[in-house]
Amino acid sequence: MIIVLKPNHQEEEMHRIVRRLEDLGLRAHISKGEHRTIIGAIGDERILREVPLESLPGVESVLPILKPYKLVSREFKPEDTVIRVNGQEIGGRKIQTIAGPCAVESREVLEEIADAVHPLGVHFLRGGAFKPRTSPYSFQGWGEKALKYLAAVRERTGMLVVTELMDPRDTVLVCKYADIIQIGTRNMQNFRLLTEVGNIEKPIILKRGMSATIKEFLMSAEYIVAQGNDRVILCERGIRTFDTETRNTLDISAVPLLKQLTHLPVIVDPSHAVGRADLVPSMAKASVAAGADGLLIEVHVRPEEALSDGPQSLRPKEFATLLEECGRIAEVVGREL
Amino acid sequence: MIIVLKPNHQEEEMHRIVRRLEDLGLRAHISKGEHRTIIGAIGDERILREVPLESLPGVESVLPILKPYKLVSREFKPEDTVIRVNGQEIGGRKIQTIAGPCAVESREVLEEIADAVHPLGVHFLRGGAFKPRTSPYSFQGWGEKALKYLAAVRERTGMLVVTELMDPRDTVLVCKYADIIQIGTRNMQNFRLLTEVGNIEKPIILKRGMSATIKEFLMSAEYIVAQGNDRVILCERGIRTFDTETRNTLDISAVPLLKQLTHLPVIVDPSHAVGRADLVPSMAKASVAAGADGLLIEVHVRPEEALSDGPQSLRPKEFATLLEECGRIAEVVGREL
Amino acid sequence: MIIVLKPNHQEEEMHRIVRRLEDLGLRAHISKGEHRTIIGAIGDERILREVPLESLPGVESVLPILKPYKLVSREFKPEDTVIRVNGQEIGGRKIQTIAGPCAVESREVLEEIADAVHPLGVHFLRGGAFKPRTSPYSFQGWGEKALKYLAAVRERTGMLVVTELMDPRDTVLVCKYADIIQIGTRNMQNFRLLTEVGNIEKPIILKRGMSATIKEFLMSAEYIVAQGNDRVILCERGIRTFDTETRNTLDISAVPLLKQLTHLPVIVDPSHAVGRADLVPSMAKASVAAGADGLLIEVHVRPEEALSDGPQSLRPKEFATLLEECGRIAEVVGREL
Amino acid sequence: MIIVLKPNHQEEEMHRIVRRLEDLGLRAHISKGEHRTIIGAIGDERILREVPLESLPGVESVLPILKPYKLVSREFKPEDTVIRVNGQEIGGRKIQTIAGPCAVESREVLEEIADAVHPLGVHFLRGGAFKPRTSPYSFQGWGEKALKYLAAVRERTGMLVVTELMDPRDTVLVCKYADIIQIGTRNMQNFRLLTEVGNIEKPIILKRGMSATIKEFLMSAEYIVAQGNDRVILCERGIRTFDTETRNTLDISAVPLLKQLTHLPVIVDPSHAVGRADLVPSMAKASVAAGADGLLIEVHVRPEEALSDGPQSLRPKEFATLLEECGRIAEVVGREL
Repeated sequence: MIIVLKPNHQEEEMHRIVRRLEDLGLRAHISKGEHRTIIGAIGDERILREVPLESLPGVESVLPILKPYKLVSREFKPEDTVIRVNGQEIGGRKIQTIAGPCAVESREVLEEIADAVHPLGVHFLRGGAFKPRTSPYSFQGWGEKALKYLAAVRERTGMLVVTELMDPRDTVLVCKYADIIQIGTRNMQNFRLLTEVGNIEKPIILKRGMSATIKEFLMSAEYIVAQGNDRVILCERGIRTFDTETRNTLDISAVPLLKQLTHLPVIVDPSHAVGRADLVPSMAKASVAAGADGLLIEVHVRPEEALSDGPQSLRPKEFATLLEECGRIAEVVGREL
Repeated sequence: MIIVLKPNHQEEEMHRIVRRLEDLGLRAHISKGEHRTIIGAIGDERILREVPLESLPGVESVLPILKPYKLVSREFKPEDTVIRVNGQEIGGRKIQTIAGPCAVESREVLEEIADAVHPLGVHFLRGGAFKPRTSPYSFQGWGEKALKYLAAVRERTGMLVVTELMDPRDTVLVCKYADIIQIGTRNMQNFRLLTEVGNIEKPIILKRGMSATIKEFLMSAEYIVAQGNDRVILCERGIRTFDTETRNTLDISAVPLLKQLTHLPVIVDPSHAVGRADLVPSMAKASVAAGADGLLIEVHVRPEEALSDGPQSLRPKEFATLLEECGRIAEVVGREL
Repeated sequence: MIIVLKPNHQEEEMHRIVRRLEDLGLRAHISKGEHRTIIGAIGDERILREVPLESLPGVESVLPILKPYKLVSREFKPEDTVIRVNGQEIGGRKIQTIAGPCAVESREVLEEIADAVHPLGVHFLRGGAFKPRTSPYSFQGWGEKALKYLAAVRERTGMLVVTELMDPRDTVLVCKYADIIQIGTRNMQNFRLLTEVGNIEKPIILKRGMSATIKEFLMSAEYIVAQGNDRVILCERGIRTFDTETRNTLDISAVPLLKQLTHLPVIVDPSHAVGRADLVPSMAKASVAAGADGLLIEVHVRPEEALSDGPQSLRPKEFATLLEECGRIAEVVGREL
Repeated sequence: MIIVLKPNHQEEEMHRIVRRLEDLGLRAHISKGEHRTIIGAIGDERILREVPLESLPGVESVLPILKPYKLVSREFKPEDTVIRVNGQEIGGRKIQTIAGPCAVESREVLEEIADAVHPLGVHFLRGGAFKPRTSPYSFQGWGEKALKYLAAVRERTGMLVVTELMDPRDTVLVCKYADIIQIGTRNMQNFRLLTEVGNIEKPIILKRGMSATIKEFLMSAEYIVAQGNDRVILCERGIRTFDTETRNTLDISAVPLLKQLTHLPVIVDPSHAVGRADLVPSMAKASVAAGADGLLIEVHVRPEEALSDGPQSLRPKEFATLLEECGRIAEVVGREL
């Protein structure tokens, strides 16, 4: 931590800051420049994040040197984390695809969709049982009934189930049926929910909050890992910007940036990012080219009848083409799909 | 709902859309212009929000006409909602101030702060027992112990207690001690929590999500009111923008805009908006001038020792000056403070 | 400037950086911490802004300590700059109002508007002769003819003329008629135009770019002052955010923040900020409460016939009420209007 | 254009609006729904963009149906525009690469860079002679001297020259040396400059403004084309968002979206988008995968000595690898590079 003093600070103010640092077990290193005096705090600066140094008289600004996250950082663990779940791997050489409807609507439709995507080599089926909807009047998901349908598909096909957990009170229920738990964008900073899933033994897909910085995203992953669950998969799904042509703006540079900062796998959800089926294939290809470890894609047999997010769902045929092209790009970047 | 057809749509596609609308109990009104044909859906368009019309062949775009919220709208209830809580009113002529520390740190400090602000005419004491913190390593609040301290201050001074609820599992506990429940910015779209507080009999302060549009903010209020709890107070607390000089950007125009769109009271939290004590007084004055029904302000006797958000806390003396000036501005706009 | 080295940097890399600093006439101050080694560059760090230190091997990040602007900073000149122009002052005790139509449409309408606002104590008349319009098919202003109309009003009433300069080739022409030159939001970083107006002897109203940070805004002012023209008036006019209910989001905290960072006067344009006449009065009041030195407000006698920005123009009667209320708030904050 | 009336509008207000539309040569189509009456304006709604209908009594909102741009739209010209310049094509099957330093620093360095990239199959050399710099104290480019160096390289190697025009007064000078004129991000809405380059006979690279919507971007292209110069190349170069880890956020979905809305070629500048050399290769690959018609990439032989934007410049060896991988991705998407 670097503490920059005001140009007109008092000598006594400086000493007070030094004493404060020493009380906290840190050493202070004073450097007087021509325009500013700065104090470097030597030791683990994470202690200082709790201390409102900016409120001390004489302080102009405080600049952190270390990153606020630790367990999820590449510095802490240089090699890639590969997450193993029921015979599949996420974060390894193979780029995994998670496909399915936004919400589970009926057993029949779910089966149809699964039967369309499974033969294409997709091992993960997504489908919402509990849906976070902006309007209280919108379809909120079928709850446990939907979870049972998902589990039935798994039994029949071997596909693994990915579904969202919205409420800590549903943890036991959702864990009973899911192979991977998804934490949605609106819950990225629902810290009690993060703590909850930090204590279970399922891999977690953590979606980036729609206005979360990369640092905040990694801090939320740190919440989960700090509890003991180190099987976290980060998912870029678009951020909120001023433009309204697409639902969100896919932050494609987040992919290589996250891969640099953390050892955790990084996947992309192009469907929610753009919110329009016609742009999903190019965004999926861009994601693979940029180094994503996986794709989360909405597929529906009849998008025009979907109860949620129909306009962004691909039909199975479009999805098959997407997979084929992504597979060839995966090869170029030294992966397979 | 207006459905704009593609310039090159098929006649059959148009008929199919009309049939779809009629199946949903709406009437279709076709209007052929020089450049586009549009179909107006006549009836309650809220039904259509569930229907992915954009996925139908021939559709170029879909434009909603009605606002997606209903119960919270001025159109539904033209007169202002005045919320009464233990002898005080929010949303009436008097602009209310809610003051206190970010987090309850100790009984002594809380008492000191309360004793500093209560004589200034402040009837509401804020203080966090459960704190949503970006880092898992930060102070998370003292939980029930803090709630007890708050209740003890109420007993002694008569000040009403405002505190945050983060987890639906704590609802009974927090309600036992709080007079007003706060839903924080990160939980504005925690729909399960909204549903939960829609079923209790305490007024709710709903803070705007840091990247929530005005529409989304009102939809979250609608969630609470739709459950039966119509005592919702909206709180503008700054939005996330590209600028980094302040913690957030106070969206001051949200105040008169919300007052126009909804009958609910609107208050402002300038402390979290700017995150710097030196800018809080001018933002408080601006808020009163813009028509706010209340202020939520962080006050601490020794900000440099605060366990959370010290840099944005005012000292009691600064706070007293703020109140005095805000009181005079309140008079200009036909209110009192 | 603080240079943070990578945890695994080579000793030789560190020495190379030190030599680089010394070559530039700076001294290097090395501080080895537990987690990172940092090098402080002692001397005028502004030299370093040109040097891509991040590209040197071993460097993790570079943190500036000093602000990038100098002449416009409070540190350079602690007392407020008061700009005198033809008997009026901007930046003094009196809050000035600049009113008029967005574009000058006809001599008659301009005269009508001037005659409506002048008796209210308004000394500055605004009106565009050259209009920056998003569409090439929109009305682009009447050019010199409009400037002549403005000058005619000045002759008759004594009101001073504020008008926009868009093109360096029009500088002589516009200066012939204007008392104050406005640089619009889209030209805030038109550096050639800034240099141009840095060499004239008229005060400049510099509008904040719609996505300009506070630092960039001040750097653009620095461009003008560095050329020798120190009569710059900063104008906050709303920034671009994700919300679409208002045209832009008025960044009200920019007012006290700028007043702290710079000695230049700061005015607010609430009309362009919100783009809706109904919200202008509360935003004007909030601006005065927040410490603005002036207001720039669109007034039109018949907004529904305006050739540009009608929806945000106030009618003279609404404007008179606004002035009266702002005047009373000005008193509360120790000013007059 | 759809005009939505307020629920409580007067009959006379409706008639007044209808008369207004008819006066403008449009037909009005009234549709009374259960909750709102709407008026459809039939005819070329572009006339209405000039008319402040929102200011008319009784109007709640105004919804445009047609896009505001015309000449640049796919609807106007369905087939791709392929721009031919001195034997090369942009917008055809071949994805073109434009490479070179941010600023031309010296003849020697420019020659070195050209000699490094030309053998890799790059036909376009970029280099700034006039540099838009945030600080007035930064290197502003060598002007005509730099243009001469660029032309000398062209003479020797046959590479075409791409350079920025910042000031309409330099048009003749820059055209004398350049093959393609670049309009920078800060000048995307410098409408006088757009008009200027609309009247020359060189292709124009128009960079997206850093907070420009897709609509505004296309409207700026329309400015150029409306003057008669239809050889416009759109360049996505990152937009401003709340995240600060990268210089800007590359809006990758703008590529397929623009290809859908306009017939003009779309290229990407990953260097300015991210501002960090280490992320440029993955962003270049993503751009090609997403359908870009070209890449604009900063290359420097010694980035650590660059006078401008060193941290984002690739070394020739890194650039060669990038080209090789992009070429293979180009094949997957049916192109070549």
